[in-house]
Amino acid sequence: MQNFRYYVPTEIYFGRGQICHLTDAIRRFGSRVLLVYGGGSIRKTGLYDVVLSQLRAGGVTVTELPGVDPNPRIETVRQGAALCRRHDIQVVLAVGGGSVIDCSKAVAAGARYDGDPWDLVLDHAKVRDALPVVSVLTIAATGSEMNGFAVISNLAVYAKQSIFSPLLVPKVSILDPEYTFTVPAYHTAAGTADIMSHLFELYFKKVEGAYLQPRLIEGLLKTCVHCGAKAVQTPDDYGARANLMWASTWAINGFLAAGFAGTWSCHAMEHPLSAYYDVAHGAGLAVITPVWMRHILGEKTVDLFAAYGRAVWDLPPEADPYDTARRAIDKTAAYFAQLGLPGTLRALGISEKDKFEEMAVKAVGRGLGTCYVPLHVRDVVDIHEAAY
Amino acid sequence: MQNFRYYVPTEIYFGRGQICHLTDAIRRFGSRVLLVYGGGSIRKTGLYDVVLSQLRAGGVTVTELPGVDPNPRIETVRQGAALCRRHDIQVVLAVGGGSVIDCSKAVAAGARYDGDPWDLVLDHAKVRDALPVVSVLTIAATGSEMNGFAVISNLAVYAKQSIFSPLLVPKVSILDPEYTFTVPAYHTAAGTADIMSHLFELYFKKVEGAYLQPRLIEGLLKTCVHCGAKAVQTPDDYGARANLMWASTWAINGFLAAGFAGTWSCHAMEHPLSAYYDVAHGAGLAVITPVWMRHILGEKTVDLFAAYGRAVWDLPPEADPYDTARRAIDKTAAYFAQLGLPGTLRALGISEKDKFEEMAVKAVGRGLGTCYVPLHVRDVVDIHEAAY
Repeated sequence: MQNFRYYVPTEIYFGRGQICHLTDAIRRFGSRVLLVYGGGSIRKTGLYDVVLSQLRAGGVTVTELPGVDPNPRIETVRQGAALCRRHDIQVVLAVGGGSVIDCSKAVAAGARYDGDPWDLVLDHAKVRDALPVVSVLTIAATGSEMNGFAVISNLAVYAKQSIFSPLLVPKVSILDPEYTFTVPAYHTAAGTADIMSHLFELYFKKVEGAYLQPRLIEGLLKTCVHCGAKAVQTPDDYGARANLMWASTWAINGFLAAGFAGTWSCHAMEHPLSAYYDVAHGAGLAVITPVWMRHILGEKTVDLFAAYGRAVWDLPPEADPYDTARRAIDKTAAYFAQLGLPGTLRALGISEKDKFEEMAVKAVGRGLGTCYVPLHVRDVVDIHEAAY
Repeated sequence: MQNFRYYVPTEIYFGRGQICHLTDAIRRFGSRVLLVYGGGSIRKTGLYDVVLSQLRAGGVTVTELPGVDPNPRIETVRQGAALCRRHDIQVVLAVGGGSVIDCSKAVAAGARYDGDPWDLVLDHAKVRDALPVVSVLTIAATGSEMNGFAVISNLAVYAKQSIFSPLLVPKVSILDPEYTFTVPAYHTAAGTADIMSHLFELYFKKVEGAYLQPRLIEGLLKTCVHCGAKAVQTPDDYGARANLMWASTWAINGFLAAGFAGTWSCHAMEHPLSAYYDVAHGAGLAVITPVWMRHILGEKTVDLFAAYGRAVWDLPPEADPYDTARRAIDKTAAYFAQLGLPGTLRALGISEKDKFEEMAVKAVGRGLGTCYVPLHVRDVVDIHEAAY
């Protein structure tokens, strides 16, 4: 097991009605808030009104940054940072999914940086201060509600990149599974694929002496498999939504990577896809993941895939490891299909191959050569071809 | 899943050599420290010298509270609280196992309470302030390094009871698995049984909609089974020690109980045993646990035991649930025996039965009537008889 520091001080209020803690949470940090949200679904569901009335009753002054895109843009971050300065904002409140929370984090850092916020994406060390972020989560997927990561897109340069800083870890996050009842089936499915991908990125490697982390990852993967399908089928299944939401948080809050860190593969390949074609992140991952699994299956990984198949898909322990591995990968692909996710790049709406090389170069630029099974430009192009 | 608040802000430094962070951690809170430790094993291992030289080099003034007993006594707490007041202590530094950390927490609260610290055990609401606690862990067992619990014994009234307060959660804990290389086999085994018991206490119940927590508990139980035996056999197996240490922390830091809380059984029965006979807590649990499992096996629990058997002991899924359940319980008992733990109260040194009724009344007084399978005085006496 690797040495590590673990410190994740987000305060979580989880469950029905926990929005009652919102105003107290905000007031700890100030009374002037920037309310960040997306395309208006929170207006339709009534959550917007609940949040506004709570904040007003608590004497909080609200400035709004609506219209955050699904892959949040640097332009919106710039706009938010400017609003913070103009209105002397004390807290950034994200009400939405991962995109909204990511955007809010970048705004929180941008508000305390003299320069273009894109600098902070290019150089994390420049994040030296940030406004506190509070979040109200409305979709289970990115885990942004309990970590210091934010992914920001700059379509002008075909870039989709992370910022990270411990300063960006939300101070308080309110997780009410009922807010996810209205998430459409496709986005519930894409969110499930995103959570599972975070777990796969960690799982398929060996770190000497690390036994606990893979066992917990298996438990979370089982949870995704069990509850993702239920949530797609029965959108108001509270138990399914609750488990999926809590799994999304823990898949990527630093706990499972502690002592078990390594370079990610599928996210590095998916981010260029989203940057070039603006596809839903989770759907892109659902396409790339099984193909990547087949690509890296070999002597170095077969026992990992077999262990995955036994623990998550209940495949029999006595079977041949390669058979078990292949069956496990097939089951993964079949599961994504069952959720209604696309299985090919074409089904994702990408009907050309001429950007494959360019995207592969960008993906490899994210360190794919240092993965447990290193990937080079040729590998990534092959994966794109096989996924086409 | 139940509603919950989750907030566990302990900063963990995990791994070889992480003691280098000690002085910085202490200096955040002050420069006058109360160093709490046990029977002197840290002097033998050299850890005492390392700690002292680091603190002195950092300009920290050290007052000592040595000699904390394995089941820490209220008398020691009183003594520590008095030392804190006399020397205007700013931080309590625990270097040791769960007993030392528990004692330190009680001292930290007692130092800021005008009255007898035993009041705080009897009424947790009286813990309104506490000195910050920093810990350096030397045995994997109680999980005290990342939670707000402390168990204190008052042998004058045959009582062994918990204090709990969020104020008692350690601010920083340093977890270096190498410090546990010198833990004797018996205490390594008892620690493993303690961790497993924390997990069992949570696992054997049903909470509507809670799916994720039992899956993670299974992963941690597998970790204990796999790594506990290795650590007993090969004391300097870093991987085994590391997994066991990190499992001990997560078994009882609030994460697994979040949304999945309920009344505990075996600890309520073991605490009176320790209070009357001063037995090692984990060894007492190893005796009680399999007997308790057999006692509560029935229609209400058989599928839980069968799931446990399949997930943790790799028992075949197609077998009869009762057979699987019984085999899983037998395997649990056999595992404790393999670790070298006693299997009966007599083997634990308890050669009389005349306190059974009295201890059962005390155990039931801890709420056993509200367990998933409620236990009454007759049940507890029967469990003692069967464990005799």
